[in-house]
Amino acid sequence: MVLTSHGAATGVSAAAPALHWGAPDAATRGPVVATLTDPRHRNAIGTHAGGYSVYRALAIAAGSLTADFRADLTNTAPSDAIGPHPQWGDAGKIVSLDPWGHMVGEAFARELAAGIDVRPTIAITRAHIDMPEIRDAIRAGRLKIDGDIIGPKGDVRVTKAAIDPVWYLPGIAERFGVSEGRLRRDLFEYTGGMFPELVTRGDLKVFLPPIGGMTLYMFGDVSKIGDNVTPLACRVHDECNGSDVFSSDICTCRPYLAHGIELCVEMAQKGGTGLVVYNRKEGRALGEVTKFLVYNARKRQEGGDLPDTYFKRTECVAGVQDMRFQELMPDVFHWLGIRRIDRFASMSDMKFNALARAGIDVVERVPIPDDLIPPDARVEMEAKVSAGYYGAGFQSQYDRTQGRGLKE
Amino acid sequence: MVLTSHGAATGVSAAAPALHWGAPDAATRGPVVATLTDPRHRNAIGTHAGGYSVYRALAIAAGSLTADFRADLTNTAPSDAIGPHPQWGDAGKIVSLDPWGHMVGEAFARELAAGIDVRPTIAITRAHIDMPEIRDAIRAGRLKIDGDIIGPKGDVRVTKAAIDPVWYLPGIAERFGVSEGRLRRDLFEYTGGMFPELVTRGDLKVFLPPIGGMTLYMFGDVSKIGDNVTPLACRVHDECNGSDVFSSDICTCRPYLAHGIELCVEMAQKGGTGLVVYNRKEGRALGEVTKFLVYNARKRQEGGDLPDTYFKRTECVAGVQDMRFQELMPDVFHWLGIRRIDRFASMSDMKFNALARAGIDVVERVPIPDDLIPPDARVEMEAKVSAGYYGAGFQSQYDRTQGRGLKE
Repeated sequence: MVLTSHGAATGVSAAAPALHWGAPDAATRGPVVATLTDPRHRNAIGTHAGGYSVYRALAIAAGSLTADFRADLTNTAPSDAIGPHPQWGDAGKIVSLDPWGHMVGEAFARELAAGIDVRPTIAITRAHIDMPEIRDAIRAGRLKIDGDIIGPKGDVRVTKAAIDPVWYLPGIAERFGVSEGRLRRDLFEYTGGMFPELVTRGDLKVFLPPIGGMTLYMFGDVSKIGDNVTPLACRVHDECNGSDVFSSDICTCRPYLAHGIELCVEMAQKGGTGLVVYNRKEGRALGEVTKFLVYNARKRQEGGDLPDTYFKRTECVAGVQDMRFQELMPDVFHWLGIRRIDRFASMSDMKFNALARAGIDVVERVPIPDDLIPPDARVEMEAKVSAGYYGAGFQSQYDRTQGRGLKE
Repeated sequence: MVLTSHGAATGVSAAAPALHWGAPDAATRGPVVATLTDPRHRNAIGTHAGGYSVYRALAIAAGSLTADFRADLTNTAPSDAIGPHPQWGDAGKIVSLDPWGHMVGEAFARELAAGIDVRPTIAITRAHIDMPEIRDAIRAGRLKIDGDIIGPKGDVRVTKAAIDPVWYLPGIAERFGVSEGRLRRDLFEYTGGMFPELVTRGDLKVFLPPIGGMTLYMFGDVSKIGDNVTPLACRVHDECNGSDVFSSDICTCRPYLAHGIELCVEMAQKGGTGLVVYNRKEGRALGEVTKFLVYNARKRQEGGDLPDTYFKRTECVAGVQDMRFQELMPDVFHWLGIRRIDRFASMSDMKFNALARAGIDVVERVPIPDDLIPPDARVEMEAKVSAGYYGAGFQSQYDRTQGRGLKE
């Protein structure tokens, strides 16, 4: 049993394709090979599908999948083309996804033909979505059925992309201002010893971490996204299962998401485009167990659930207010070639500042309409606006805001 | 740099609390210690919060969190008591979660006082949820505002629990009929070398894998869940972001979830209880990239998207039809003390059979009402019913069913 591999003096195995992150074209860049069907071809740490690789390993242990299974990728290529864009050739701009991840069939046809098991890390398809809030907007006359963006039954046509994380470790280190060695060591040590190759294989620069990725929902003519002429509406949304799916009234997540989608549809109907980025970062990337612990602490604290102590309660339980690291968020905009967002459905100063630092202009920020804020979510809104969130038009009731008690 | 630890001849470090999985009481069982603040106390592999541990490690690398931070758990204890139940003392019944995970404050007060950093793996809180579909049910007269289960504004009161996975490796191995050694080796090897302790530390029997956990939504008087007298309605739902959040019409996920919630509310209003189990197993635990690849293959194949080839397309891309492993699903019912489900909102034979094998009676299976099946989801429904899903009352149109083309 080999516990970890050690790089040859010359770096990755001679059988593994070379990988030059940020190279201007696919042939020079080379494919990311993280499959396990032939370990000699691997040029990355970790493997595909994030944490779902654990289920895959379980399937092999249980005998329901053979270890050497290779995907038949017939007919799976993207429904719509994305890129290449000039940003793909800049190792500083994209460090947390593989810009060529959806195009492996065409970009790395030579390697595939040579028997190297290159897997897509991005998939692009089309769908019709039929959200209750969009139907409400149609009923209320804010949106109209046009037979194209909104189909005859009120369903909205979208192009969507699923993106697995692919980290270029030197670039991630640079983004956070730490040395690559420190980053590798901390990633290894503070996950409880996950992937010793992080420390033994300095020659492997790419890591596929077992974390959730993101999904994009694109509205209108996808080929115009990133032309930086056609107006773009956008919402960057971080997962909140309790609100997004179950409409818990303690936060504004689903209402703001639905409002963002409405802005995207509206923009697409005017000839523009829309983009929703949905990041799998539950509870500010602290996870849902921590989130619920914080809810209890907020609602039970002396004096009740107040905007004043909103961030403090998270800090007491988690040590930080937030672990979402918006520093990595702009990468997907670079992937899409976007340099300007015309209408941005977000009040977050962290997101706005991260985009600004990445050189992406936000023309207009659109706060959530006051009547969409659920009753118990005022605590969060007041706390956030008071802490620097964009709140033009927000009617503050800071001193009169208190959340429900735990058992109300 | 220590790449992996090796157990002493006597097993875990003398400073680490002993762990006897399946012991009848907390004192004998002992706490799961997977925190990294003092490695000498650890008696498990991996760490807390699933894949979010990667973000935590990044926070430490970035200098925004100190490695020795310990949570202040003041006021975070469960809003409602769950258990203990006799099932907690059976190492064969619960192998994928820690039954004492929400009670660490009381169950392991002695260890906490001795400075051992025991963390909850389960958190229980309360919420009000306000789903559009429930409002529709109220408008249509199927549900009525009662001021208790459904509040005056139409919001539904729930108790919810977030549960992180905690795997007892000998029990997982037994559930799948493989040796513990084989399981450990495959989990290590086929994740690309994650956690060498899986193979070097046979004395550590517990593993916290970096996969998503689950969330429970409980309706009615929670103290009556598991009394096996009060009638229980239930939906076991596996995450499908595209439908659950965005209402994509290619599957029945959100409509069936909403219907399940309606049955739970209805049962609670009649004096019964309701339970929704929401498992983070996107795309049958294959992940969303694979899911979208399969969508493209289905919609582009010769002859179009037909029930006949529905499962085959997944198998071609993923090697299996499904990786959800319903074998582990019944554990949460044992945690809640449940031996009988009166109304089960699921047509899945895999879920039904897994519950039956675990000794949990399902009295009535409730299929999704025909009018809730979205247009493009008929392919899935026809394929599933034809493959053995429960379909009483389902009006099959097998030969006339074809899904939309990719670009329609």
